Amino acid sequence: MTVLILTCEQDVTADMVVAELDGSGVPVVRLDPADLPGPVALSGEYVHGAFRGHLSAGGRMVSMSGLRSVWVRRPGVPATRAAEPSDWLSEETSQALYGMLRSTDARWMNHPDAARRARHKPWQLRLAQRSRLPVPATLITTFPQAARDFADRFPDLVVKPVSGAHPQEPPRAVPTSRVAPDADFSAVAYGPTLLQRRVAKRADIRMTCVGDRIHAARKAVGPDADPDEVDVRFATSDTTWLPVEPPPRVAAGVRTYLREAGLAYGAFDFAEDGDGTWWFLECNQSGQFGFVQIESGQPVARSVADWLAAPGPDPVPSNGGRAWLLEGH
Amino acid sequence: MTVLILTCEQDVTADMVVAELDGSGVPVVRLDPADLPGPVALSGEYVHGAFRGHLSAGGRMVSMSGLRSVWVRRPGVPATRAAEPSDWLSEETSQALYGMLRSTDARWMNHPDAARRARHKPWQLRLAQRSRLPVPATLITTFPQAARDFADRFPDLVVKPVSGAHPQEPPRAVPTSRVAPDADFSAVAYGPTLLQRRVAKRADIRMTCVGDRIHAARKAVGPDADPDEVDVRFATSDTTWLPVEPPPRVAAGVRTYLREAGLAYGAFDFAEDGDGTWWFLECNQSGQFGFVQIESGQPVARSVADWLAAPGPDPVPSNGGRAWLLEGH
Repeated sequence: MTVLILTCEQDVTADMVVAELDGSGVPVVRLDPADLPGPVALSGEYVHGAFRGHLSAGGRMVSMSGLRSVWVRRPGVPATRAAEPSDWLSEETSQALYGMLRSTDARWMNHPDAARRARHKPWQLRLAQRSRLPVPATLITTFPQAARDFADRFPDLVVKPVSGAHPQEPPRAVPTSRVAPDADFSAVAYGPTLLQRRVAKRADIRMTCVGDRIHAARKAVGPDADPDEVDVRFATSDTTWLPVEPPPRVAAGVRTYLREAGLAYGAFDFAEDGDGTWWFLECNQSGQFGFVQIESGQPVARSVADWLAAPGPDPVPSNGGRAWLLEGH
Repeated sequence: MTVLILTCEQDVTADMVVAELDGSGVPVVRLDPADLPGPVALSGEYVHGAFRGHLSAGGRMVSMSGLRSVWVRRPGVPATRAAEPSDWLSEETSQALYGMLRSTDARWMNHPDAARRARHKPWQLRLAQRSRLPVPATLITTFPQAARDFADRFPDLVVKPVSGAHPQEPPRAVPTSRVAPDADFSAVAYGPTLLQRRVAKRADIRMTCVGDRIHAARKAVGPDADPDEVDVRFATSDTTWLPVEPPPRVAAGVRTYLREAGLAYGAFDFAEDGDGTWWFLECNQSGQFGFVQIESGQPVARSVADWLAAPGPDPVPSNGGRAWLLEGH
């Protein structure tokens, strides 16, 4: 049984996992959907009630029924390296590739549907609440008056994008910023705005979760940190990520979250306050883990490889099958 | 409890359903996400482990916890009618709106995840097979030799797009066409191609399914029909859609399909051959029903209104919760 990795050519994180899989003798096919059609080819036949599909990449042919798992790492847009690329060809190719892969029995890290749903910040916040994780008071609104009322109740606020990275080429991360005490909220009417009570943090927490395995790491806020620098991605720091034992309630909450979200992989960000409470900020279903592994020494790539190589049924219904407990009933 | 309809302003099909709901005294809020922010506004607050959300449209305010169901009819792209539209604003607005709606207990027709998955033709064909519906022999390939071999085994073929409508503005439907006996398949290498055994049909079948209700209609092929005109959407015809009783096995298969796909609504196209067999061609999760209702007299709009207004839990886990039986296990 083969592990299929969908990612671009330059992907050091994928390299780390491939090295682990190679070391264990697990067959791997790695390809970039941007190379289909061309260096990558596919074929699927539906005859007499049965389906037989094949993928070809790098001179190797693999049967779709022989796929153990699919790791959706950083795949390119299908057909973008074709001889004559077009939106139409990308759509046709995407439907062919993912439509066939969706029909296989392979396990997904992460399933495209679960991944897409998991990107919705408002949904994340609600699922974290239902998973009994502490969530800082948050408002998402286009009503200026609602923003003003919220700022009266929670005077120390940060503002963040609702959706994450700005969709330019290359995507640009928008930093979380503090809201000035005399902020004018009238512009809220022109775009949904996410306001959140600022957590006066003494550490950032990154929990990298792979199936049932949790790798929690902690990075203390430096003693001379600027309290206006609330976004760890943009802060300079002398401190490093160190392994930490998560509180049992947080570990249980994170497992509930992943199960209900149908995710096999999730990178959680928490802020630890002065009382030691871990406040949920977000769960990135495609979050990087290379930097944590290098600094903390935690074997995340090993965990990913083990999950991808494991036989048997999916421990988490990887397309989010459980989430109907939360939605749509 | 309120029914929320997401659609554009000019939508006669939605008008038909709204008339039914109004006649039953069911509260309805109809809005176009393109009008958010602006005429449509939203707000959601996450405080002390609870969520409270509101939508405002046409001067009416509705609580998200008061939504019974959401009908995703023909919604515009969020924020496209904003004062300063941009991809970034559309993404922020989409995440805010759908992220909140996904967190509610409302039932969906259809859930966005189930709808997205259901558009994949290769996945449709496999699910139809597993639902024991007859599927004409089909090949989807980028291997010219595979296409040649298939044409040897099944000499009478049609070719169709894998993905449906061509993504130009406005989208253009690509007709299904017969493959000439001496076809050169070398171009298959430049784009995935769907080849299917042609069904010599004596009628087209449209089954419009709403929850458990099936409205099956049949349109006979005219006696002087051109056998090269295989695509009913482009054929001229004197015959009309008439109600027909589906064979019990087909009705059972269609119900299995919808359940496993997590769809509350689906419009199935079949081709009836000379033996009376109904061959599955496709299931369009957003297929029109106005023309069938008008010609056949079947009360599809009434069924849609009844489903949207029905209290209680979702008869189908409407985000596709059951589909992990087929995928990813």
